[in-house]
Amino acid sequence: MFVDEDNITDLAVQRWASAHSPRSGELMTALVRHLHAFAREVGLSEDEWMTAINWLTRAGQLSDEKRQELILASDVLGLSMLVVQLNNRFEAQATPATVLGPFHIDGSPTVPHGFDMSDGIPGTPLFITGTVTDTEGRPVPHAVLDVWQADADGAYEAQLPEIDEARLRAKYRAREDGSYCVRTLVPRGYAIPMDGPVGDLIRGTDISHYRPAHVHFLIEEPGHRRLITHLFQEGGEFLDSDVVFGTKDALIVPFTERQAGIAPDGRRLDKPYLHAQFDFVLQRS
Amino acid sequence: MFVDEDNITDLAVQRWASAHSPRSGELMTALVRHLHAFAREVGLSEDEWMTAINWLTRAGQLSDEKRQELILASDVLGLSMLVVQLNNRFEAQATPATVLGPFHIDGSPTVPHGFDMSDGIPGTPLFITGTVTDTEGRPVPHAVLDVWQADADGAYEAQLPEIDEARLRAKYRAREDGSYCVRTLVPRGYAIPMDGPVGDLIRGTDISHYRPAHVHFLIEEPGHRRLITHLFQEGGEFLDSDVVFGTKDALIVPFTERQAGIAPDGRRLDKPYLHAQFDFVLQRS
Ligand SMILES: [Fe+2]
Ligand SMILES: [Fe+2]
Repeated sequence: MFVDEDNITDLAVQRWASAHSPRSGELMTALVRHLHAFAREVGLSEDEWMTAINWLTRAGQLSDEKRQELILASDVLGLSMLVVQLNNRFEAQATPATVLGPFHIDGSPTVPHGFDMSDGIPGTPLFITGTVTDTEGRPVPHAVLDVWQADADGAYEAQLPEIDEARLRAKYRAREDGSYCVRTLVPRGYAIPMDGPVGDLIRGTDISHYRPAHVHFLIEEPGHRRLITHLFQEGGEFLDSDVVFGTKDALIVPFTERQAGIAPDGRRLDKPYLHAQFDFVLQRS
Repeated sequence: MFVDEDNITDLAVQRWASAHSPRSGELMTALVRHLHAFAREVGLSEDEWMTAINWLTRAGQLSDEKRQELILASDVLGLSMLVVQLNNRFEAQATPATVLGPFHIDGSPTVPHGFDMSDGIPGTPLFITGTVTDTEGRPVPHAVLDVWQADADGAYEAQLPEIDEARLRAKYRAREDGSYCVRTLVPRGYAIPMDGPVGDLIRGTDISHYRPAHVHFLIEEPGHRRLITHLFQEGGEFLDSDVVFGTKDALIVPFTERQAGIAPDGRRLDKPYLHAQFDFVLQRS
């Protein structure tokens, strides 16, 4: 029983169905079917196939601890955001999830309410305040808010040369009433890296390679679903064209201008700042 | 207009449809649709997605001039053989194509009719003789037959340390009457490399990781479609389970035992040998 153009997909599916783990069998046979359907639909040429092989090879070889070109590829194809949504089907009143992105660093220091995680870094001060509750409005005391963001030039700590201390990242905890207060600076929207194979693809299209300005949150508390999300600055550039499809209406927040005076952390601030208010709503697990 | 689980595929398709080359647009939008359909169908988890990213990264990083793990992945998923068939739809009487494989080396020396390309390498002598014709039976004189194969241990030149001279590879030319004569040795079936991510996948299944014994041919002559194919030894192991799906009924040839005497090259041979007869039929272009 040898292959021809018609039977090869069935033969390959039969073979991979021999996987010892039922889930692997499900994944591999579906992968074979969808890959083959793609090749058949477009009539993939031998040159195009070779180009794809070389593209993937280059993407793998460009990836290291600080850069992951294959995650970036998944992001710009909308696959990452699809996977986020398939795995985070929350109730309508819960805060929606969005992509983790490549710049999260584990083990940020736990800091007190109102701590300035931008201390010493140039930028316009930004306070983010609000509560963490469940979908029935009950406070979630002690919830950990792991926060990270780009600086006013659009650069993350992970993109900068080795740094001694955590830079623009910290873990806050909600208080007994669920309230939290983050002090940071106003982030800037940024371009994805365009010097690799993903950049080559995007340059051949009209796709914008920017992300709108945002602050990342990863919120965890036992009894609740982990929430990985962003807050986006209302009115910012690129909200309608986020290259990784991460923007959601419910995550866009006004960054309101405030004059010097008593700031949301209860301390006096001698210059103007911005203030974003946002109440995170966690899905119970 | 922001993404949700339902509209993200359409949004990603719209975006990639802005490709400046119509063919790129066709390829990228189909890729998005099929990737998304795969993720939706299997309900891809975030851990599985990350495993896939790491798998591809490792495959890219393991690939170099001598090894191509992503081609191997395409081979074992049946994708390479599907692409071969989509691009080589010959008439029924033409010799079918099969995979090129990763071991072809460009620029093999052109050698005379009957040349022994296995000279000095241990193994049982094998003669391969026959004709090159078109689908109407007309000889194709001067057709170039680029031939390469594994040795009696299953190793190709590309897998061995740097070698001065071409090893088990040569370019023959058909004579005026279309006839050709290759002298070589009997190749051995071989295992694909199992120490990388493809091996990890295959070990989790009942799939055999062997290829049946074969000799590769790449036949070219202006006015005819290029033919990339193999000849397989009839009765050999693994014919029914070729890990890259490359075996075809029409490419299986008896390797007949012959006693010492006048060999097909017209010279005396003092030991027994095998003889394969095969007439290649080229599709006119
Ligand atoms: Fe980000
Ligand atoms: Fe081979």
